[in-house]
Amino acid sequence: MSAWVLPDHIADVLPSEARHIEEIRRDLLDMARCYGYELVMPPLLEHLESLLSGTGEALDLQTFKLVDQLSGRMMGLRADSTPQVARIDAHLLNRAGVTRLCYCGPVLHTRPSGTNATREPLQFGAEIYGHSGLEADLEILTLALDSLKAAQVGSISVDMADAGIVHAVLKDAGLTAAALANVHSALAAKDASELQSLSRHLPAATAKALQDLVQLYGDASVLAEARKVLPDLPGIQRGLDHLQWLSSHIEDAKVTFDLADLRGYAYYSGVQFSIYAPGASDALARGGRYDEVGSVFGRKRPAVGFSLDIKAVVGAAAVRPLRAAIRAPWGEAPALRSAIAGLRRQGETVVCVLPGHESEVDEFQCDRELVQAAGQWVVTAI
Amino acid sequence: MSAWVLPDHIADVLPSEARHIEEIRRDLLDMARCYGYELVMPPLLEHLESLLSGTGEALDLQTFKLVDQLSGRMMGLRADSTPQVARIDAHLLNRAGVTRLCYCGPVLHTRPSGTNATREPLQFGAEIYGHSGLEADLEILTLALDSLKAAQVGSISVDMADAGIVHAVLKDAGLTAAALANVHSALAAKDASELQSLSRHLPAATAKALQDLVQLYGDASVLAEARKVLPDLPGIQRGLDHLQWLSSHIEDAKVTFDLADLRGYAYYSGVQFSIYAPGASDALARGGRYDEVGSVFGRKRPAVGFSLDIKAVVGAAAVRPLRAAIRAPWGEAPALRSAIAGLRRQGETVVCVLPGHESEVDEFQCDRELVQAAGQWVVTAI
Repeated sequence: MSAWVLPDHIADVLPSEARHIEEIRRDLLDMARCYGYELVMPPLLEHLESLLSGTGEALDLQTFKLVDQLSGRMMGLRADSTPQVARIDAHLLNRAGVTRLCYCGPVLHTRPSGTNATREPLQFGAEIYGHSGLEADLEILTLALDSLKAAQVGSISVDMADAGIVHAVLKDAGLTAAALANVHSALAAKDASELQSLSRHLPAATAKALQDLVQLYGDASVLAEARKVLPDLPGIQRGLDHLQWLSSHIEDAKVTFDLADLRGYAYYSGVQFSIYAPGASDALARGGRYDEVGSVFGRKRPAVGFSLDIKAVVGAAAVRPLRAAIRAPWGEAPALRSAIAGLRRQGETVVCVLPGHESEVDEFQCDRELVQAAGQWVVTAI
Repeated sequence: MSAWVLPDHIADVLPSEARHIEEIRRDLLDMARCYGYELVMPPLLEHLESLLSGTGEALDLQTFKLVDQLSGRMMGLRADSTPQVARIDAHLLNRAGVTRLCYCGPVLHTRPSGTNATREPLQFGAEIYGHSGLEADLEILTLALDSLKAAQVGSISVDMADAGIVHAVLKDAGLTAAALANVHSALAAKDASELQSLSRHLPAATAKALQDLVQLYGDASVLAEARKVLPDLPGIQRGLDHLQWLSSHIEDAKVTFDLADLRGYAYYSGVQFSIYAPGASDALARGGRYDEVGSVFGRKRPAVGFSLDIKAVVGAAAVRPLRAAIRAPWGEAPALRSAIAGLRRQGETVVCVLPGHESEVDEFQCDRELVQAAGQWVVTAI
């Protein structure tokens, strides 16, 4: 095997795609700034205890581990930045009021999350801490949609659920954590027969509600249907009210519901959403409310946020034209050097042709060149 | 120990510094684009063979290793992106002509490179492949200086050396690789007595040249002095000519020379430079010519480049004012929501005060607020 073959699901990003990723990265960070989100940069490496406390087995399995040579302790490479940002809110900032934070950086996965998934996503996300009202959920959902629009992703649709509904159905069922996880998996897979088998010792009303949940996906009529068929429990009514209110505020995106959807990491506690677009096989962004996420750091407070992988977004975003460049000859003459510097200060890309390479076709798309005319350096079309 | 204590030399970057890093990051990438450098993004993880082939022991010791669960092979976390970019030039792009590439991303070190150094630098760098002339060295040096100026680093000075001079002095000394490494270390440490001891089996002219090299640092007079005292070897004369020509083209920066300087990674083959500024204990940027770097990938071609750690640059760069924000009330009224969206489209930061948090002092510096006057939403000073 050649020395330069990369590991599976790990790839170099070459110029045209790298430029596109960088442009989208800036658009997303600018959008978060416009909304008043402060940027933080948690580290790639942390002690395992702080990286994985309270985050569940799925994230643990996705996390690369290594030994810190300075301390002999185990460290992990982050597979998700969300718990890190919760730690920053809880411990480092420790503010009493509303805190809005955003982040953007690589995460690493031991195994790809899908057949074509990278093991090195470039994760961008935003979070609001300290507000339990639906206004925060709406702001996060709006920011997620505006972010994808800024990235020039078209035909966006949002699929919504509320973790509180499934929780309310199963609350008094007395299931062990392991049995609960099996039910969640069967719900996510819409596996009605598996659910039936898992429900055999559950009360009849609970078993029926689980079967109903599997059918409750589709457009706005799902909410009305759910009010009819699901048990009249406060947690279920509240979840349906929340979904109705939020969806009534979404413009420019198709809204669907999937009340059995519990995908993503296990920390959601309220409304959750997935955003889809043509050209992407999986959700482009996921988010929701996870009020428990800071509790391991001694500070359980309301939290709602979303995250996405910029590398996946690039695949669904409109291709952007390359900014054209100016070709310039190489020379030591001060007038030439100052003409080049001046053009660059204006934001132009000026590629100097190094001596001996005059006949090369350059990879930058040069549509103009710097030439000397009547003793002046001027830009002319090629 | 608390769960959230980070490993030594690993830190969270909090909002004001993160914002500064992001601004400098953009300035540096924009500067490289203006010069015609294409962005590439090599991965954080590679098989050890491709990451470390031909790069020397120092980089090996700095590299975290882990096992790929998909293949069982050893992988390394990059400690330096330079060899990765050489691999991309040699294998993936494989162009015949001049290729200009730049990159920006985190690297990880098993041990810090200094008492206050981070183990997670944010490395930015640029490289020219395919041109062996000094014009490429000059372009890289000028880009490095312009990059630091764009980052608003003041009072920059450049310290230059040419690896060819030391190589020429030791070329025929018949030293083993280990003995050579000891001589290089003693030269870098300017340890004259250690050099004397290491020289005891060397020809007298070589021993004298090593002692002379230790003294040859300082301003431009060093070059004249070197021509007088060093042996009249072609490699030495060429090195001195190169330094003279390059330094004559540097404006706006103090230039010094240190002919014994062989710091940094072991791959330099020609001119090398370190850029310093007040407020930074170590060099802010290092670069030079390393024509051998692509040979392990089957493509030895001329290469010159530089790199820097943006986190270190931030410490030496002028502090930038925070862009002031606009505070807005929360509300469902379409007129309010569209006023907020319009301001954000203009690039303004608009922070919505969520219900119940009206009396909080926000962390964004709001100097204006959106208020309703005569039925219109208008921005007024606070």
